[in-house]
Amino acid sequence: MGHDFAYPPVDFETHPDRYRHWKLQIDGPVATLTMAVDEDGGLWPGRYELKLNSYDLGVDIELADATQRLRFEHPQVRVVKVTGPEGSKVFCAGANIRMLGMAPHAFKVNFCKFTNETRVNIEDATTHSGQVWVAALNGTASGGGYELALACEEIWLIEDGNAAVSLPEVPLLGVLPGTGGLTRLTDKRKLRRDIADVFCTKAEGFRARDAVKHDLVDRSWPRSQWAQGTAARAAELAAQVAAAHPERQGPGVPLPPLSRRATETGWAYDHVQVQLGHDGRVATITLSGPSDAPRRDATTWSLQAFRELDDALLRLRLNHLGVGLILVQTRGDRQQLLAHERQVIDGAEGDWFWREVQLFQARTLRRLDNTSKTLFAIIDAGSAFVGTLFELALACDRQYMFADEDGQNTVLLTDANQGVFPMATGLSRLDARFPGDPDAVEAVLEQEDEIDASVAEELGLVTASPDDIDWEDEVRIAVEERASLSPDALTGMEQNLRFGGAETCETKIYGRLSAWQNWIFQRPNAVGERGALTMYGHPERPVFDFDRT
Amino acid sequence: MGHDFAYPPVDFETHPDRYRHWKLQIDGPVATLTMAVDEDGGLWPGRYELKLNSYDLGVDIELADATQRLRFEHPQVRVVKVTGPEGSKVFCAGANIRMLGMAPHAFKVNFCKFTNETRVNIEDATTHSGQVWVAALNGTASGGGYELALACEEIWLIEDGNAAVSLPEVPLLGVLPGTGGLTRLTDKRKLRRDIADVFCTKAEGFRARDAVKHDLVDRSWPRSQWAQGTAARAAELAAQVAAAHPERQGPGVPLPPLSRRATETGWAYDHVQVQLGHDGRVATITLSGPSDAPRRDATTWSLQAFRELDDALLRLRLNHLGVGLILVQTRGDRQQLLAHERQVIDGAEGDWFWREVQLFQARTLRRLDNTSKTLFAIIDAGSAFVGTLFELALACDRQYMFADEDGQNTVLLTDANQGVFPMATGLSRLDARFPGDPDAVEAVLEQEDEIDASVAEELGLVTASPDDIDWEDEVRIAVEERASLSPDALTGMEQNLRFGGAETCETKIYGRLSAWQNWIFQRPNAVGERGALTMYGHPERPVFDFDRT
Repeated sequence: MGHDFAYPPVDFETHPDRYRHWKLQIDGPVATLTMAVDEDGGLWPGRYELKLNSYDLGVDIELADATQRLRFEHPQVRVVKVTGPEGSKVFCAGANIRMLGMAPHAFKVNFCKFTNETRVNIEDATTHSGQVWVAALNGTASGGGYELALACEEIWLIEDGNAAVSLPEVPLLGVLPGTGGLTRLTDKRKLRRDIADVFCTKAEGFRARDAVKHDLVDRSWPRSQWAQGTAARAAELAAQVAAAHPERQGPGVPLPPLSRRATETGWAYDHVQVQLGHDGRVATITLSGPSDAPRRDATTWSLQAFRELDDALLRLRLNHLGVGLILVQTRGDRQQLLAHERQVIDGAEGDWFWREVQLFQARTLRRLDNTSKTLFAIIDAGSAFVGTLFELALACDRQYMFADEDGQNTVLLTDANQGVFPMATGLSRLDARFPGDPDAVEAVLEQEDEIDASVAEELGLVTASPDDIDWEDEVRIAVEERASLSPDALTGMEQNLRFGGAETCETKIYGRLSAWQNWIFQRPNAVGERGALTMYGHPERPVFDFDRT
Repeated sequence: MGHDFAYPPVDFETHPDRYRHWKLQIDGPVATLTMAVDEDGGLWPGRYELKLNSYDLGVDIELADATQRLRFEHPQVRVVKVTGPEGSKVFCAGANIRMLGMAPHAFKVNFCKFTNETRVNIEDATTHSGQVWVAALNGTASGGGYELALACEEIWLIEDGNAAVSLPEVPLLGVLPGTGGLTRLTDKRKLRRDIADVFCTKAEGFRARDAVKHDLVDRSWPRSQWAQGTAARAAELAAQVAAAHPERQGPGVPLPPLSRRATETGWAYDHVQVQLGHDGRVATITLSGPSDAPRRDATTWSLQAFRELDDALLRLRLNHLGVGLILVQTRGDRQQLLAHERQVIDGAEGDWFWREVQLFQARTLRRLDNTSKTLFAIIDAGSAFVGTLFELALACDRQYMFADEDGQNTVLLTDANQGVFPMATGLSRLDARFPGDPDAVEAVLEQEDEIDASVAEELGLVTASPDDIDWEDEVRIAVEERASLSPDALTGMEQNLRFGGAETCETKIYGRLSAWQNWIFQRPNAVGERGALTMYGHPERPVFDFDRT
């Protein structure tokens, strides 16, 4: 099963000019994103073919890139239509099974998490940016193909006696539709329970008539009316959205490439540095504040630094599986940080660009919440955990704050800590820190000034505040202890402790659906020698141990 | 790892006279349940010793029995105090590790589910029956020992310089506290997030002072004041509860043994029959209605039949792992069924006994929801899916209803289908069937008469309603198809589809926490040759693959 297959490092940066698998066409307020996967363009050349418009991580990286660029570079786009190649019988067959079969478990899980985040971000664009994604299924959408459609606001399916939507994972592969499908059937499309059961066990799925009847798709047209029908509906939607978001007008703001470069111990960008240590088991991310004033373009600190942080997190997840602990540090001029934050929060009121910057920061913070590595905030001398950057500390599992003698090491809370950057649960990180204790939250928010270590500990904002004598030892011991524990147990524990309280479709996908999928991805019935995933495409049938757990 | 160890069948019936591990003492309104585990009394004799008051399924079966009997047999009890043997340094060390190490995966998972249900039922007794459970920890409570305490309304810890509460699973065993601990820390006790993180990675836990400070326990007394302090607090609580539940007075209603007997193809009780077929892969449960009038004792049909169903479900789960599909059938006189249901629902208004019967039925239905086997309701000729019994059908993944020519085969909805028996989500099964479609629910509830197959299908109450020509084939094919699918994929799929919408502490424990635990229970880092669970108690340290998923 290739558990030792050392895959090459993944690069998450791309650009429409370099897309191998998608075509992005923009026609006024309607963008068309055509999935036309290059069979030979897989991430691990020669290892598998991306047949039937199936996808691997490389295909999804391009999709993720498109969702970001559309929001920044094409603000006038109101409707994003995802569709298959004209004349193809298949819109998308889902994740590539051969790739899944050979991928190490940790890659498989992180691949699924990334594709889930991309789909959640499609919903985020629909909800918050007035870019409504629709799936125009001009051929069969099965498995992950239909799950991509489920992330869209509307699903249209061609009625040609052939095209269908389906989730064949359970009957054909012995795994779950793991990219949010089950959760979106129940919690988004709100299917009748038994219909969902029938649909998820019916490998061939439903064609247009049944799919519309059972609300698996929203509309359908016969082939002869497809082009006209979909175009008319797209125009209608675009007009509706335009009326609701008049502020979103061009010109767009291009997103330049990041300035990543290798360093002796890791890599660095302009504002973010990653250092690997402890035999590659601990990474230190240092985020540095701005050195100049806000600018209304993609080089402005608030956007660039968070794009760098986002890229760093993704690389740590996929290319540095062995890193189990991330130490989060900050540096910078507090007045500059506050000025940039003010620009983002105030600007977001009336200017789509600053609003997008704020939404991007929110998504990056959720990517951090959702990273299955331990996070410790190291609030050391010279730190700059101010407002937006204090959200980084709140996202961490623990906070260590150096208590310097003269109280110069401080943290500062601002408007940015009051729900501007909600977690996937919908809660602010401050509310999530003090569940069921609104008084504690209020006491924190009453602090208008810099908060030193002793007050921070008293307010419950930090886990420990060692002084000069203890600081180094205490942090070192905490790091060593953490790095010695079972990474699987920590992943499960952190997932449960980070997302207390409220649940949303999003938290259910990451927390519940994904956990079941991870379990199944380990089971002999899926990945064993005669498991369903292993045997897929072979002439023999899988052999199951029928014990029910 | 003993994956082929064929353990002897488990019997879920017991009685305080036969308890080996618990002592139940009743002193007016306060019951004391002392955990004094018989080291040599394990379920699999000679295989492991239940040291340090650790528990196995046998210990928990006695606890589950006590929770039920206290509600029925001792209605005057207001406070149930769980405690350890006097003078012992250990209250309870949690689930027995040796047992967990040798148990097959499916047993391990079903054992955890049962212990979780018992703890949820402790909370159910506290909330609904005016029997408030408190944990009087006169020694260290670690792992499952502290998780048992977390299920109690109050936790008291002796302050003796030694006793502590802890969740050492992550640091010592490389698994999660899997009996609700993580979820109750966040969602019930609402711990500060970083404190929860520290606590769950600190093998030795917190002694009284820190435990009170961080709200891991509610009260503590030094040893010299322990007896007096706990007695006074118990009396105080008992008086409060008595005032709130004046209707709960003796005499109690004894629960007699069930009348289980083997049959040619399975086993049967007075009202419930279990037939095994398809090489032990399919079970048919037939529940028969009453033949006489309601009686205010434990032989009344509403209680006895549901006790039998509950026992049948538990036996199917633990003793018949290979059963992947349960067909649910009903028989009986509709007028009698309605009379018994009326007695329960009307009686529950003022009489604690009928209220307990209704609560027991609700718990049994939730046990059914929570059974990881496919459930098909077979509404065939002669069926009696009326009111409370229609909840059985609604608990199923699918409903097949025979459309007889003259419309004699009907179902009937009553008050019992309007939220009297909530699911763990808090939703009625009818609301859960039609998520986001209150009109459909209303249309169903407007039907005051018997509903025949064609109307039932139209209303969305059944999945299919084949007629005489198709009935046998359609059911047979559905059964065979289902029985051929991967049991793991079905378990994950059903868990996600059954519990759509709202989440509660309970659904988070079963749906999210348990899924992560199941995953970890399969991981080499826990159960591999050098995994933490395997190596526990050995002198060598575990060896981990540090890749983070």
